[in-house]
Amino acid sequence: MSEIGAAEPWAIRETGVPEDDELRQRESVFALANGHIGLRGNLDEPELCGMPGTYLNSLYEERDVSYPEAGYAFPERTQTVVDAPNAKPVTLTVGGERFDVRTGTVRRHERVLDLRRGTLVREVEWTSPAGVDVWLRSERLVSFARPSVAAFRWTVRADAPLRVESDLRVNEEPPEARDDPRASAVIRAPFEPVAHDRDVLVHRTRRSGITVAAAVAHTGADGTAQAEPDLLRWTAEGHGELRFDKMVAYRWDGGEDVRGAALRERDAAASAGFDALADEQCRVLAEFWSGADVEIDGDPEVQQAVRFGLFHVLQAGALSVPGPVPAKGLTGNGYDGHTLWDTEIYVLPVLTYTHPEYAERALRWRHHTLDHARDRARELGLDGAAFAWRTITGPECSGYWPAGTAGLHVNADIAGAVLRYHAATGDETFMREAGRELIDETARLWISVSHLDADGVAHVSGVTGPDEYSALMDDNVYTNLMAQQNLRAAALDEHSLEIADRIAIPFDERHGVHEQAAGFTRLEEWTFPGDRFPLMLHHPYLNLYRRQVVKQADLVLAMLMRGDAFTAEQKRRNFDYYEARTVRDSSLSAPVQAVLAAEVGHLSLAHAYLAEAALLDLRGGGESGGDGLHIAACAGAWMALVMGFGGLRDSGGRLSFAPRLPPGLTRLRFRVRWRRARLTVTVTPGKVCYEASGDATTFHHEGTEVTVADGDTATFPLAPVADRPAPPSPRPPSPR
Amino acid sequence: MSEIGAAEPWAIRETGVPEDDELRQRESVFALANGHIGLRGNLDEPELCGMPGTYLNSLYEERDVSYPEAGYAFPERTQTVVDAPNAKPVTLTVGGERFDVRTGTVRRHERVLDLRRGTLVREVEWTSPAGVDVWLRSERLVSFARPSVAAFRWTVRADAPLRVESDLRVNEEPPEARDDPRASAVIRAPFEPVAHDRDVLVHRTRRSGITVAAAVAHTGADGTAQAEPDLLRWTAEGHGELRFDKMVAYRWDGGEDVRGAALRERDAAASAGFDALADEQCRVLAEFWSGADVEIDGDPEVQQAVRFGLFHVLQAGALSVPGPVPAKGLTGNGYDGHTLWDTEIYVLPVLTYTHPEYAERALRWRHHTLDHARDRARELGLDGAAFAWRTITGPECSGYWPAGTAGLHVNADIAGAVLRYHAATGDETFMREAGRELIDETARLWISVSHLDADGVAHVSGVTGPDEYSALMDDNVYTNLMAQQNLRAAALDEHSLEIADRIAIPFDERHGVHEQAAGFTRLEEWTFPGDRFPLMLHHPYLNLYRRQVVKQADLVLAMLMRGDAFTAEQKRRNFDYYEARTVRDSSLSAPVQAVLAAEVGHLSLAHAYLAEAALLDLRGGGESGGDGLHIAACAGAWMALVMGFGGLRDSGGRLSFAPRLPPGLTRLRFRVRWRRARLTVTVTPGKVCYEASGDATTFHHEGTEVTVADGDTATFPLAPVADRPAPPSPRPPSPR
Repeated sequence: MSEIGAAEPWAIRETGVPEDDELRQRESVFALANGHIGLRGNLDEPELCGMPGTYLNSLYEERDVSYPEAGYAFPERTQTVVDAPNAKPVTLTVGGERFDVRTGTVRRHERVLDLRRGTLVREVEWTSPAGVDVWLRSERLVSFARPSVAAFRWTVRADAPLRVESDLRVNEEPPEARDDPRASAVIRAPFEPVAHDRDVLVHRTRRSGITVAAAVAHTGADGTAQAEPDLLRWTAEGHGELRFDKMVAYRWDGGEDVRGAALRERDAAASAGFDALADEQCRVLAEFWSGADVEIDGDPEVQQAVRFGLFHVLQAGALSVPGPVPAKGLTGNGYDGHTLWDTEIYVLPVLTYTHPEYAERALRWRHHTLDHARDRARELGLDGAAFAWRTITGPECSGYWPAGTAGLHVNADIAGAVLRYHAATGDETFMREAGRELIDETARLWISVSHLDADGVAHVSGVTGPDEYSALMDDNVYTNLMAQQNLRAAALDEHSLEIADRIAIPFDERHGVHEQAAGFTRLEEWTFPGDRFPLMLHHPYLNLYRRQVVKQADLVLAMLMRGDAFTAEQKRRNFDYYEARTVRDSSLSAPVQAVLAAEVGHLSLAHAYLAEAALLDLRGGGESGGDGLHIAACAGAWMALVMGFGGLRDSGGRLSFAPRLPPGLTRLRFRVRWRRARLTVTVTPGKVCYEASGDATTFHHEGTEVTVADGDTATFPLAPVADRPAPPSPRPPSPR
Repeated sequence: MSEIGAAEPWAIRETGVPEDDELRQRESVFALANGHIGLRGNLDEPELCGMPGTYLNSLYEERDVSYPEAGYAFPERTQTVVDAPNAKPVTLTVGGERFDVRTGTVRRHERVLDLRRGTLVREVEWTSPAGVDVWLRSERLVSFARPSVAAFRWTVRADAPLRVESDLRVNEEPPEARDDPRASAVIRAPFEPVAHDRDVLVHRTRRSGITVAAAVAHTGADGTAQAEPDLLRWTAEGHGELRFDKMVAYRWDGGEDVRGAALRERDAAASAGFDALADEQCRVLAEFWSGADVEIDGDPEVQQAVRFGLFHVLQAGALSVPGPVPAKGLTGNGYDGHTLWDTEIYVLPVLTYTHPEYAERALRWRHHTLDHARDRARELGLDGAAFAWRTITGPECSGYWPAGTAGLHVNADIAGAVLRYHAATGDETFMREAGRELIDETARLWISVSHLDADGVAHVSGVTGPDEYSALMDDNVYTNLMAQQNLRAAALDEHSLEIADRIAIPFDERHGVHEQAAGFTRLEEWTFPGDRFPLMLHHPYLNLYRRQVVKQADLVLAMLMRGDAFTAEQKRRNFDYYEARTVRDSSLSAPVQAVLAAEVGHLSLAHAYLAEAALLDLRGGGESGGDGLHIAACAGAWMALVMGFGGLRDSGGRLSFAPRLPPGLTRLRFRVRWRRARLTVTVTPGKVCYEASGDATTFHHEGTEVTVADGDTATFPLAPVADRPAPPSPRPPSPR
């Protein structure tokens, strides 16, 4: 039995030994990653494992998929993340007894994820069944400064003979697959051995042909190493105390000498030593927090959780070269390790405003997949580029097209992320090398997929918006507004601008609300008869699609991303209408509902959705995040605070704020990078203060343009916003 | 090289040895069946085989299906027809040389399917590579009079030692699967042996657990029999001439002594002898043709083809006990041997008006699957019964729900077939025992799947109509009109009748045409840029669904089945509108287009569509029908003639005619059963004559009620109909 302790500002503390049914979730919470390497937070003893998990960004295996009834352009192959060589297992024997916290007496068991040090520390005091007292401390980090390196420090004390086996394991037997459509496929033994010696194992994935080298060094104790094709084992013995450091370096880039490169990185890390790596880690994090931290007074749990979320967004997105940011980051194998539109719409806003070079690299990765997207567009009978709904390296991996390939909005989402990045940074080099092409090619898609009707109205028919409880609808408002922005940004020709100007935005005059898609508000209502959530596990799509039931913010997301296209009155009415029909069966929903709730004045409701998003994986019940954290929800906590209560908007490339505080929060401070400046925004009851550093910054406060000089401050009274009561909802925010 | 010879009125004659790429289609054309047993028209020599095929109605194996991304209520198991013990192979050796028409010299090779005798006769004159002249004649029948029996007669003459091996083979290795989504799954070795001796093999399917006994007797020559678990082989030798008869009896009903029953049926057949069975066959067929024949003057090819089609409809539908009529009959394994809505909408009209007891048994089979349909409705969150889109014994076997399960119209189609059968026969026993429950339970489905909007209009949202190039649309006119009929026939309560009265029938005022479904006529047009057909093999559903492109008659089928719901002007305008958008990528389309073309006055076009449907498998090019005949198209030839040029309609249970003759046809005569009477209708230029026998008959001729007494005749002038030129079509009827 274990628990996540009371909220601390900069740490996540677990006390007690996690039970079997807690293991998977904790392994995700305590995962360490640096955008390239990800280690799930497994305990040192390999047998106490929910799901192993060492991931290398873009390391995948290919597999065939088949369909009971296939159709043209259904993907025949898919990509699945695989477990990389696992350097975590350490097996300890104390006086002949195996160290096993499920036996004997655990006097203390604590793990701490330190958000400023970027380390996971475990401390155990244990008395063995034979009565030997054992003290153990292990610490690990995945280096932000060294993209190829993970490091471990291990100390054990006991008045007895000690023996450790420290392993690097390949092709471990995976745990049983779970019966959940969102779970990953399991690929057994994905690697064939290429070479092995006492320093390094080299393997190649059997089908995707990716070569992986993992080099290991143990220092601080004498030991002996043995090597097998799928195992490197270092064994050391002692008495009273045994301590050692373990450095691991991975290289898995194609086409070069990965073995040599891994050995060089390992040697460099080993010669620097664990303490130096830990110092580097602190420095990187200090710089990150200085630009990204969000401070709040009045809700310590959310304060902790938003930093936890930002830390994991950093861990998922800290790219030193172009690469994807998967939906689960590098914390689990959920969604097969695929990257979806979450990246551009949820993760990249955070990175753009806190660490824009990471956003740039994620967008350059999308650009690297452009040829796949062009091929896919041709296959779909469309022009331009049709980016994959799910992928690791670019090819479409979605196996259910009505909620996959038909979600063409991913293309406008990518264009939108490019526009945001460009507006925030002014990075013309990126635009010239990648961004412009992304915008133009996706615009070509919209030209080919839209058509003007006899009245001159442009339509996009038969596509699926963000809400996956609807599919293949006409004129999804979110899709059409994002496509409009995409077309206008590309401005390819008169025809495309005409489509943008004339695109249908369905509005139901009777209810005075926008239709999520044409006809939506005339569908049958869902009656919520004692429903179990998520509905998709209890009801067929046939029944969901034909009704007014919304899995996740869709029209409400449109009001966030294209707030300029709605009046304040429309936003209020739309919010209430869709609130009554949204079940939040996706973790992508609460953050967006929080932002719009704040905008339309449901301040307490916004706070509740903020908390739901922020606490989802950290303090959510059950299996939440067990196969990987919801990185978009991690980012969503930032969105809810900065876009919700901070009121940050960037429609049309114009930075604006409309801050407000919910009852209970007494201070909100956040930082935003904009061009060469950093803007620090502090909201307190009755007052909002903007502080610029690095350069003068121009933005809008409550609709009025403001320029703050470098080093200067501008203070405004906080616009009074009455807290409107929450409208009816079929599933109010989770209570805390 | 072989060919189907010039049209003969009562026979299909093939001359020459079929090439490898002709084999599969000919095996379907020459298939013999009696509703229970089906034998593909394989040559005697087992090695000259496109696809083996011995089918027993409802003999199937179960298998798991998986999905790249599964959803709630996606079927996890499916049913697939399997090859029953194969009694066709006979291997002949002449003077030590194997009889093989791919070697030596074939002087004559002819096969004749005799539509009045119900036999397939093969005659071969062949000179072996060593110069021995061989004459061979084989004849086979599948007995309509004896549902368990097939019989073979074999004669060979040559001035040399002769040796034959006549086999019964089980678990034969199937040919390679083809790369076509419509092809069947292949199950290898589906049977486990239960018992074998020289008279009978007993096997059981491994998973579905169906026990099959096949008993064989050889008479007319002395031979020796050997038995293995998967093989019965009878060997005989002679010189100069060798002849024998082979009787096979199959039993595969669960729960009884199938071995004993098969042996008894075999013994009875053997003791009657081949000649007696052939006489029985002639008598059954004479009776069938006297009630079903359609005679035409002016188009001998269509004359032959409509009889060929009727013969195969009889072979598929000649049920002595309740059973399904699969889409391919018992002529191949296409669609996995599944039964679809084709049965109720295409096959049962023919059977109802020619051999109503077969229609009754097919409908009783549907009724037997009612518990599956009730369970499925619950699973889908609906009331009443949701019959399987594809099935063998009742469970849903559709693996792509947008074009399967979402085709809820199958339920109204079943109700419609019940109503037709009841109107035509007045069979109250059937209605009491099965028909009423079918109508009421399907009506309950429509109540639960429809909803009244704020204006009091009833809608059925998110379903798929007959056209599979659209899916998940709202208010498909065909579905809604069939549901309306279903609800009115059930008349369960006021609410359901209100739904029926208020059901939405989308109409586009701008074009003056009905919308196939809400919004259809506002979708983008398909531009047909050099298209290859079927479009579904070259374009994704994403692109098809969002455009005005129609795979198969849908709104046009609504105008046939619910002609009372349209004005004559609407029919004309609708026909032309949908003609321009229909690509006929389904064999279900041409018959319906033929009927409506005739109704709205495109007489030559109707004739062309009639020919296309009638000749599809018999004289169609390529692989058409290779994995089984298109039984609905076989029925469709009758529909095109009797409903098209005969103008037979039965909306609302009222029999009516509006005959017309296209240029080129000088006489049409057909028979219809109605209650206790047989009505013979003869249409000649300028005149139509109705002749009743068995009872007086009341019907409508051109809108006027007519009663013809038993044995009497009523003659009317043929209403003059000018042949309107064919409207534009993206794919005009196949030229002949």
